[in-house]
Amino acid sequence: MVVVAPDSFKGSLSAEQATAAISAGVRDTLGEGAEILQLPMADGGEGTLAALLSVGRVDARTINTVDPLGRPTSAAYGISPDGHTGVMELAQASGLPLVDDVAPQPRRADTFGTGMVAAALLDAGVQEMLLCLGGSASTDGGTGILAALGARFLDVDGNDVAPGGQGLAQVVRVDDSGLHPRARAVRWRIAVDVANPLTGPQGAAAVFGPQKGATAEDVAALDRGLTHLAGVLRDRTGVDLIDVPGNGAAGGVPLAMTALLGAETTPGAHLIAETLGVPAALAQADLLVTGEGSLDGPSVHGKVVGTLASLARQGGRDTAVVVIAGLVRLSTAELRAAGVDAAFSIADGPASRQELVDDAATLVRSVAASVAGLYLQAWRP
Amino acid sequence: MVVVAPDSFKGSLSAEQATAAISAGVRDTLGEGAEILQLPMADGGEGTLAALLSVGRVDARTINTVDPLGRPTSAAYGISPDGHTGVMELAQASGLPLVDDVAPQPRRADTFGTGMVAAALLDAGVQEMLLCLGGSASTDGGTGILAALGARFLDVDGNDVAPGGQGLAQVVRVDDSGLHPRARAVRWRIAVDVANPLTGPQGAAAVFGPQKGATAEDVAALDRGLTHLAGVLRDRTGVDLIDVPGNGAAGGVPLAMTALLGAETTPGAHLIAETLGVPAALAQADLLVTGEGSLDGPSVHGKVVGTLASLARQGGRDTAVVVIAGLVRLSTAELRAAGVDAAFSIADGPASRQELVDDAATLVRSVAASVAGLYLQAWRP
Repeated sequence: MVVVAPDSFKGSLSAEQATAAISAGVRDTLGEGAEILQLPMADGGEGTLAALLSVGRVDARTINTVDPLGRPTSAAYGISPDGHTGVMELAQASGLPLVDDVAPQPRRADTFGTGMVAAALLDAGVQEMLLCLGGSASTDGGTGILAALGARFLDVDGNDVAPGGQGLAQVVRVDDSGLHPRARAVRWRIAVDVANPLTGPQGAAAVFGPQKGATAEDVAALDRGLTHLAGVLRDRTGVDLIDVPGNGAAGGVPLAMTALLGAETTPGAHLIAETLGVPAALAQADLLVTGEGSLDGPSVHGKVVGTLASLARQGGRDTAVVVIAGLVRLSTAELRAAGVDAAFSIADGPASRQELVDDAATLVRSVAASVAGLYLQAWRP
Repeated sequence: MVVVAPDSFKGSLSAEQATAAISAGVRDTLGEGAEILQLPMADGGEGTLAALLSVGRVDARTINTVDPLGRPTSAAYGISPDGHTGVMELAQASGLPLVDDVAPQPRRADTFGTGMVAAALLDAGVQEMLLCLGGSASTDGGTGILAALGARFLDVDGNDVAPGGQGLAQVVRVDDSGLHPRARAVRWRIAVDVANPLTGPQGAAAVFGPQKGATAEDVAALDRGLTHLAGVLRDRTGVDLIDVPGNGAAGGVPLAMTALLGAETTPGAHLIAETLGVPAALAQADLLVTGEGSLDGPSVHGKVVGTLASLARQGGRDTAVVVIAGLVRLSTAELRAAGVDAAFSIADGPASRQELVDDAATLVRSVAASVAGLYLQAWRP
């Protein structure tokens, strides 16, 4: 069996389009009867919901909520057909593009809207919640989500602090008496696509703040806010979350969710692969064809390609692992170390980046046909 | 066993360099102990002698001879270690670059110098002669070679006609009484790299004359000359050589050699592959990696790639056939029809032609490593 499971080719093909193109190429060689399992992948960030929807793992829903500045918006989310698992993408209600019509307000932006989505899923009775981070506008340590679920972040006078990262430094106490009754009855899993810690030079504010419009002064203030909140929560729970890799994702969303809801943080690609049933699929796969736009260092450290290659190696079967990419920037030794048997660019000769983007579907299909051709001829069943 | 047998990557890598780069990549994956048979290929045109020399099929010799205008020059040729086979490249003594220091003389240029090389090989006692065409300056129907071997092309008054294509229309009789005594005692094999007929719109003068500096008037005169000579030789031998594919190669060299010496004309790539022992090698090969600069229509019709793919299919073994090329311009269907299992460009992403040329050795090596990686993983011994 052939498993086709690429990430998106950023700026060119969605994961679904890449999956279709690769599968078409494999069929060009193996014929219409080829046994192909199509699993469009995602790294747990934006696009994850679409990937899960495309393979029928969740059904689509939409809800009215608020954007990072508290303005009305709507957000898509998913719920598994059996009602067990809810899937949210932070960017749906709390994404940066939702507020690009106004001047950046990096200290004000919050994740309250995502909390409203979560509340709806809790009301619907799900047992497990999957929250995919990435693309956020805020640096609020996840307090917006908790606030929407009924928690209160209070200042020295017992008043709610201001929303967003701006209020974090004033928090002296958390009142969770009004928390949604099911908030602690479900399993929360957070898919993170970065390994940054909460604070410091590699933290949420310093690294991702500027993309959200934060000035140097904003970054310093937001970093202080996160540090302060982490201290308050450490005093409460006894657990210091400041240095945990991944807690710097999406403006520190894992901080409050881990401390107050017991959420588990997992590298996104791995979590999505699990959710899609990739390990079971790979245990039966002779050939895995994955791919992405640019195959470089990060690709094989926590992203889709590296995660699948690693899972394939753990599968106990000699699954051949092939990567098709717009750009291949790893040496043969680096590919081998990551468990990748072969990597091919989609380029069929001299070409500009734009030409590769424009012709990506056709080029991916051709390379996939050759991959299948070589595989088929080499394979001695 | 892996057979590595690419053509040259024109303007970038010689066949020997391409062979080394592919082999290095295969070794990067399979290890130093990998069983690799290296057979740098050629299509029977220029570069063939170098390819044969590089694998020790012939030893190098040099001889003083004359260029297409009768001026002194030297030419390399080869002779097999056992003395059985002599190998000549027409371009060595009769090539266009030898006369690029003067104004083109397409009617005067002849192949006499190549005949002098042939005479030396006959004197050396070879049993078989391999003449590789391509790159000629002349359109003399091979009369120059025959003249150097002692034949005389006489006009109505019994005088020798003028040398080169200009004299062909005056030939009324061929006197072969003075022919080298061994000229008919050896087997002559001519490697042609084109399928053009002798005359007409697809003939030697019309298609290749202009590259040799022939004006429209020259082309017409040379075409008439070839037509006339073919008639004289048909009257003598009873065989009409005018429409035979390939007889238009190198200004019609096969004409006189076939009619007067019984030479056999063979597509060059096939002849070279045979000479190099490719069919026997492929009968033991699990994987064939070939390649060339540009993989397009002609590649799979008589050139190296198509010839080797065809031989691999005839080998009775399920040899996987992979092409590595600077530019891949064949569809999956066209590749399959030609017996090619997979074709990959050396490009690893967006790149200009010049970048691919400059980095060709490194890029070829990387792709070859991935080809071997996929092959190795797929192979179930």
